[in-house]
Amino acid sequence: MCSVYIVGVGPGDQGLVSMRALEIIRGADVLVYDRLIPQGLLKLAKPGAELIFAGKELGHHVMEQEEINEVLVSKAREGKTVARLHGGDPFLFGRGFEECLEVTRNGIKCVVVPGISSAIAAPERFLIPVVLRGVASSAAIVTGTEDPGKRRRFVDFRELAGRVDTIVVLMGRHRIREIAKELIEGGLDPGTPVAAVSRAFMDGERVIFTTLGEVSGDGLESPVVFVIGNVVNAAKSLVDSQ
Amino acid sequence: MCSVYIVGVGPGDQGLVSMRALEIIRGADVLVYDRLIPQGLLKLAKPGAELIFAGKELGHHVMEQEEINEVLVSKAREGKTVARLHGGDPFLFGRGFEECLEVTRNGIKCVVVPGISSAIAAPERFLIPVVLRGVASSAAIVTGTEDPGKRRRFVDFRELAGRVDTIVVLMGRHRIREIAKELIEGGLDPGTPVAAVSRAFMDGERVIFTTLGEVSGDGLESPVVFVIGNVVNAAKSLVDSQ
Repeated sequence: MCSVYIVGVGPGDQGLVSMRALEIIRGADVLVYDRLIPQGLLKLAKPGAELIFAGKELGHHVMEQEEINEVLVSKAREGKTVARLHGGDPFLFGRGFEECLEVTRNGIKCVVVPGISSAIAAPERFLIPVVLRGVASSAAIVTGTEDPGKRRRFVDFRELAGRVDTIVVLMGRHRIREIAKELIEGGLDPGTPVAAVSRAFMDGERVIFTTLGEVSGDGLESPVVFVIGNVVNAAKSLVDSQ
Repeated sequence: MCSVYIVGVGPGDQGLVSMRALEIIRGADVLVYDRLIPQGLLKLAKPGAELIFAGKELGHHVMEQEEINEVLVSKAREGKTVARLHGGDPFLFGRGFEECLEVTRNGIKCVVVPGISSAIAAPERFLIPVVLRGVASSAAIVTGTEDPGKRRRFVDFRELAGRVDTIVVLMGRHRIREIAKELIEGGLDPGTPVAAVSRAFMDGERVIFTTLGEVSGDGLESPVVFVIGNVVNAAKSLVDSQ
């Protein structure tokens, strides 16, 4: 039976890839991969394996999602074992679910392998916990880039403000000022600490500590994870003591 | 220089452990481990390595957090390489941050290795995405068990209701009815779909599909991850089509 593996390969460091993911990569006939996967992984493909770059960078999609789905289905129908590699986790803003749905609808077996998500790991890289006993008991993970084709906006930052202790914004570099403005309008203090984590686990990784009133995406290289809340101060105290 | 590694080993399946984590486990002189780690990992320890069970089960702590911190510091001071293994991710309700802070305060180097969190991976095991284009753009991860010693409650479920698309409750088996009641009082429909994922990636894993009005922790084995929101219906459609 032909099958498609939807595989998370973590936040960009090859050491953070799971054993299961490596096994699938080594055995696959076809690898369909995103821009943000650890590049060394492709060298692990077996000789003759077909490598297909699916792109996915804000505003620079190489393949449309429909094309990606079509490739997964058609390659699997040729009897090939297909591994679809996602940076991070495939179901956390990765569209892995949509791919799995499409594959399954076509009678093809779909296996999902979770990965380490940058939503949690990127802050952790700079010793920032998104939750912390006595400081934060809840963390919301939200997208900063919503599908412009949608009929309604899903994330109402004014409503979210103050309802969770920590807000983690993914894919929000271009809209972070607007998001911060809405959070302040929703009641958050402009002095609320913010960490902007850029390219965690990749070349040029860095963190900038700022506040909600001052945050901007200028000069930051993608991908950026923004962490908003008092956990950021906890991390600073740890970093300072090192 | 002595050092302590704070290592996430994922949600319970040895295949989901990262290469980096395995390397550290193989090289450590001392392994301090939680109840919910993949048990096969301990067999990878080098001959003569010291294995210390730290426990951590609701209501059945084998070691207090202060004792764990003390062990990490004292073993490292003996010049040993210490690996502190956490199920899931060490910073997502794992107290890894607190351990890191304590270790660092004692002049010992602390290295953190992220892991796959069950907050995302346990639902994914049953093809439930916590966010999904067109259905959910935000997910809150919250603890269902707050420290009773705290002066104030951190998670106000009445306030959270309706402010995020998906609510993921960890460690909430004993309190889920009360939490559901508060979410309904906060405005969520009692018919809101809920998935209770029990022991994902471990023996006896299963999922129960229910609603906010009907959910209960009775008969479910720990650990349980509750997913509350319309993403649960999306998953059901996928499972049905398989």
